[in-house]
Parts: sequence; C-alpha cells; structure tokens
Amino acid sequence: MKVIPYNDISPTYFDNDLAKGVAGRVLVGKNDGANNFCMRIFEIAPGGHTPKHTHPWEHEMFIHAGNGEIYCDGGWTEILPGHVAFIPANIEHQIKNTGNTLLKVVCLVPPQAPEM
Amino acid sequence: MKVIPYNDISPTYFDNDLAKGVAGRVLVGKNDGANNFCMRIFEIAPGGHTPKHTHPWEHEMFIHAGNGEIYCDGGWTEILPGHVAFIPANIEHQIKNTGNTLLKVVCLVPPQAPEM
Repeated sequence: MKVIPYNDISPTYFDNDLAKGVAGRVLVGKNDGANNFCMRIFEIAPGGHTPKHTHPWEHEMFIHAGNGEIYCDGGWTEILPGHVAFIPANIEHQIKNTGNTLLKVVCLVPPQAPEM
Repeated sequence: MKVIPYNDISPTYFDNDLAKGVAGRVLVGKNDGANNFCMRIFEIAPGGHTPKHTHPWEHEMFIHAGNGEIYCDGGWTEILPGHVAFIPANIEHQIKNTGNTLLKVVCLVPPQAPEM
C-alpha cells in the first residue's frame, strides 16, 4: 500500500523550447509494483504549457485544479477542475495554463509509455 | 477525444449493507475506446463508505476533494485532497468519509475489473 500527499514526491521540471513551466511527478508506477498503468501529475505554471506532441499511447486525464485549455483534434477546449479528458493514441495534443494559479492535471499512461 | 465535466456523466448509486452514500461514475472506459485501464470517480457522502472488500486487481487513486480515511494493510490512514493511493491486488480495503463535504476519489482499475 502507498498513501501519500503528491507533494511528497520530487518533481521533474520541464522548461525548454517545447515545454514551459511544467513540473511532473510519477505518483504510482512500476517502482510501486503497478505494472498495468502509471499515474502522474503535472503542474503547469501560469503561462506555461506542455509540448504539442503525438505518441502511440493514450492519456486519461483528470483536472484537479486550475484553469487551462487542451488542444486535440485541431482545436482548443477549456479545462477546469473536475474535467475529464481522454486523448486516444496518435492524436496530437497539448495543454496550456490560461489562469493565474497552477494547473494540476492527473494523467495516466499504459505501461509501454515512459513514466516521465 | 473526450473532454467533459465529470458531472455530465450519470452516477450509479450504492446504498446497501456494504456500501453507504456512494455515487460512482465511469469517466473513461471501454465505451470510449480506452482498453488498457478505466478511470472512475466515486463521491462518498458525509458518513458514507465503500464496501470493505478484496479483489484480484489493483487500484490507483487520487483524492480530488473532501476528507476521509482509507483502510488497507489492517489500519486506517487519513486521506485529503492531493493524496495518492495505490492498493495492490488482493489487499482488503475500504474508504470512508470523515468530513462534512463530499469525498471525491478518482480510482482506476485494469481492464479485467468491472468498470462499475
């Protein structure tokens, strides 16, 4: 069993040409014995964004806090706390923070994806 | 792609000898083309609880809102918003709401588990 505040996990920061103001954490993964899917959380700072990218695995997301937009299927859709997103494999996508507080997105991937 | 507020999904209610005050929703599952893992959310009313049970699949959980406790490995642990829980397969577990507002738990299961 593992029960912890997500903030107890050290983040990996992404701040480059493709991603801006992003802190990612693996919440539950193979190191915990979770071999079927991996839970991460991404904190995106105001003005920040994930890379616009495509990969051969899906995302299941839950918006925990903040305000933003998600790009998928060629357009942007607003995301708010309590929103759910499913991004199928091989679909270009991106998330940006359009608010003034951290955008916090729980994001799960299957085991063939890199955990972070 | 699917991006929706979780409240747009109709809940299934559980109120019986084993579970009390629980509303469950499948957020992302096989009907969406998500075949590798299934995201659900459970709202547990103040005083309510899930069944104390065991099954041969794991849970990965993220606490979105509320206050409660989770039973696992023979003891109770406090859960708060932003807490993460991993319950391995075949471990007895239960969640109860110890607060005055809805306890909202995002809970994922692998594809061999019932989605709800």
